[in-house]
Amino acid sequence: MSTIAPARDIKRAHNFNAGPAALPLPVLERIREELLDYRGTGMSVMEMSHRSPEFEAINNAAEQNLRKLLAIPEDYAVLFLQGGGSLQFSMVPMNLALPGKPVDVLHTGAWTAKAIGELKKGVLHHIAASTEAEKFVRVPRAAEIQHSPDASYTYLCTNNTIEGTQYHEVPASAAPLVADMSSDIASRPIDVPKFGLIFAGAQKNLGPSGVIVVIVRKDLAERADKNLPTTLQYRTFIKEKSLYNTPPTFAVYVLGLVTEWMASEGGAAGMQKRNEAKARLLYDTIDSSNGFYRCPVEKPSRSLMNVVFRIAGGDEIVEKDFAKGAAAASLVGTPGHRSVGGMRISLYNAVGQDSVEALVNYMSEFQRARG
Amino acid sequence: MSTIAPARDIKRAHNFNAGPAALPLPVLERIREELLDYRGTGMSVMEMSHRSPEFEAINNAAEQNLRKLLAIPEDYAVLFLQGGGSLQFSMVPMNLALPGKPVDVLHTGAWTAKAIGELKKGVLHHIAASTEAEKFVRVPRAAEIQHSPDASYTYLCTNNTIEGTQYHEVPASAAPLVADMSSDIASRPIDVPKFGLIFAGAQKNLGPSGVIVVIVRKDLAERADKNLPTTLQYRTFIKEKSLYNTPPTFAVYVLGLVTEWMASEGGAAGMQKRNEAKARLLYDTIDSSNGFYRCPVEKPSRSLMNVVFRIAGGDEIVEKDFAKGAAAASLVGTPGHRSVGGMRISLYNAVGQDSVEALVNYMSEFQRARG
Repeated sequence: MSTIAPARDIKRAHNFNAGPAALPLPVLERIREELLDYRGTGMSVMEMSHRSPEFEAINNAAEQNLRKLLAIPEDYAVLFLQGGGSLQFSMVPMNLALPGKPVDVLHTGAWTAKAIGELKKGVLHHIAASTEAEKFVRVPRAAEIQHSPDASYTYLCTNNTIEGTQYHEVPASAAPLVADMSSDIASRPIDVPKFGLIFAGAQKNLGPSGVIVVIVRKDLAERADKNLPTTLQYRTFIKEKSLYNTPPTFAVYVLGLVTEWMASEGGAAGMQKRNEAKARLLYDTIDSSNGFYRCPVEKPSRSLMNVVFRIAGGDEIVEKDFAKGAAAASLVGTPGHRSVGGMRISLYNAVGQDSVEALVNYMSEFQRARG
Repeated sequence: MSTIAPARDIKRAHNFNAGPAALPLPVLERIREELLDYRGTGMSVMEMSHRSPEFEAINNAAEQNLRKLLAIPEDYAVLFLQGGGSLQFSMVPMNLALPGKPVDVLHTGAWTAKAIGELKKGVLHHIAASTEAEKFVRVPRAAEIQHSPDASYTYLCTNNTIEGTQYHEVPASAAPLVADMSSDIASRPIDVPKFGLIFAGAQKNLGPSGVIVVIVRKDLAERADKNLPTTLQYRTFIKEKSLYNTPPTFAVYVLGLVTEWMASEGGAAGMQKRNEAKARLLYDTIDSSNGFYRCPVEKPSRSLMNVVFRIAGGDEIVEKDFAKGAAAASLVGTPGHRSVGGMRISLYNAVGQDSVEALVNYMSEFQRARG
C-alpha cells in the first residue's frame, strides 16, 4: 500500500447523483476527524464491536434522531436493516400479506414495477391504480384508485426517481399504507400515523448505501409466520433493537451524523424549505427556456427530489454534450436513468442551493450557445 | 453540528475485538485521505453512483484482489452481498438444498447451531457429526463424520469464534462442501476447489461490517428455484457482478483496500505466517502459566483467530478484573462471548504482533500480582 499523499486543496463537485448521492460536508469532515480514533476510544467506528456501549449509543442516537425528525410515535419501531429496497419488495409481502387478502398496488413506474415483479411470484395482488398508459408522467388521482374491499395493505412509492414524479398528498386507504420512501424520506415532514410501514434505503437523503430504514407499526409485524427465516422477519429486529446480528455499523453511524445535521438545519420542515427553493429555481429555469428544456411531468406531480427534463426536443447528441460540459464544470450526475435517457437532476437534502445556482447558470449558458 | 475539533495526537488501542474488529492502520489512513475527494472526483466514495466507472473500478478491484489472494478459479463467482452470515444460514439452503436430499451438518458450536435452527424450518437435514457432548472443545475427527449417501451438501463452520476451535484440515465430503468462513477467511491460503460455496462476513478479516463475501461454484447457483425472491438468489448477483441493486459501496471500497494491504504483506501465506506467530506467543503464555491461565480447547483444534481461556479456575471476579485492567492499558475486547464467559482474544489479520506482545506482558504482570 502506498504511503499517504500530503494534504492538498480539496475541490468538491456539485453532486446531483441519484443515489448514492451527496452528503453534507460537515458530516464528511466529522467522519474524517473521527476516523482513526472515535472520541477517545482508540478505534475507528468500523473497528468497534456492535455489542460495545459506544456502538449501542451510536445506534440509539441514530434511532432517536430519526424519531424526532419524523415525529415517529412510540407504537412504531425504527429498524436499521440490510439488503436495500429490493429485498423489501419481497420482505414486505412475506411479513404483511394475509392469506386470501390481496395487496393493492398503486403503479407509478420502475420501482413499483420491481415490487409487482416480486408479488407475481405467488402473492395475491391487485393493481388499484396505474399511470402506465400515460407513461408515468403523473401519480394517480384520488378518484382513480380502486381499492380492494379486503386488501392486506396498499403499496405505493412516494417518489419515483426515474420518472421524476412525487405524491404531494398521501392517498387515502382503509388498509395499512406501505410506502417505499427511498428517495424522499426526511425531505419533508411525514405524517407517520397514516402509514403502516415505511422503508427507505439511506443512500439518497439519510446517509450512505448499505443500510435501509424500516419504520413499522409494531402490531403489523406480528402478522408474519414465525417459520420465516429469522433475518427476514421484522419482529426479530424489533425485539433486538436492530442488533440481532452484526449491523452495518459504519453506515448507521453516518446516518446518525446526517440526521444530526438535519436537526441543526431546521429538521424536516427546514429540509422541505431548502428543497422547495432548490426545485423552484430549477423548474423555473426549465419552464422559462421557451421549450429548449422541457420537463415531461405534469406539474402537480413534479418531484422536488428528481427533476427530469429533455433538451432540444430530446436530441441525444445535444443531451450528451450537455452532460459532458456539465461534468467538465464539476456538475456531476446529470444524465437521466439509462432506461429512459434525457437528463435527471437529483436534489436530495445535502445538495446545496449553491449547486443548483451553478447548474442553472450552466443551463443558461448552454442554451445561449445551442438554443 | 459542532465544528471540527483541531488535529490532535491519536492514540490507537490494541484491538482484540471479535468482530467488527481491527483494521490495518495504513488502510484507515488511506480512507481518511480520500474521504472528501476520492482521487480527484470531488466526491467521497459514499457519494458516488454505484453505476459510475469509478465505483465499477472499485468493485472490480475488490473482486480481483480476492481472486488473487485466495486463488479463486474462474468457475467460481465472487459476490458482495448484504445481510450478514445470519441471512446466509437461510439463503444457502434456499439455493442449494435439493428435494429429498438432506443437508449434512458438522455441528461445532453456536454458529452451526444457528444454521441448524434455520434448517429446522422445513429443510431435510442430518447431523453428520457433532462435538456437543464434549462441549465443543474440538472439531470432529475425520472418522467420526457419518455422511448421508445422497446429501445436497455438507455444511461446516471452519472457525468457531465463541468456542475457540478451528479446522486445520478440510474434511472430506462427496457432496459439495459449504463453509461459513466468517472468522478465518484469508487468514491462511484456502483450497477453494474443495468447496462448493464459501461465505464470510467482512468484519473480521476483510473489512468493515455490512458486506458479506460469497464464493460460489457457478453451476451450483443454478440449483435455485427461479421463483425465489430475486435478491435471495445467488444467480441474480452472479449475472450482475454484485450490482443488481445498490451495493454497500463504502464497505466494498474498504474491503478492496484491506485486500490490497494483505497482498502487500505477503498475501494469504504471509497472513498465515503472521497469524501463527501471534497465536503461538499467546498460547505459549497460557500453557506456561502453571494453570493460572487455561485454554479448554484440545490442542489440534485450537483456533489461530480466537484464543479463549479461563483465569484462576474460572473465577469470575478475577476475570472481570483482568478485562478492566486490560482496558485501562488500552487492550480492548478481551472478555469472552456473553454466552460462555471467560476471556477471548481475537487475532485477526490486522492485529499486530506488537499488540500481542503488549497483551502477554500484561498477562504476565497480572499473574505476578494475582497468581
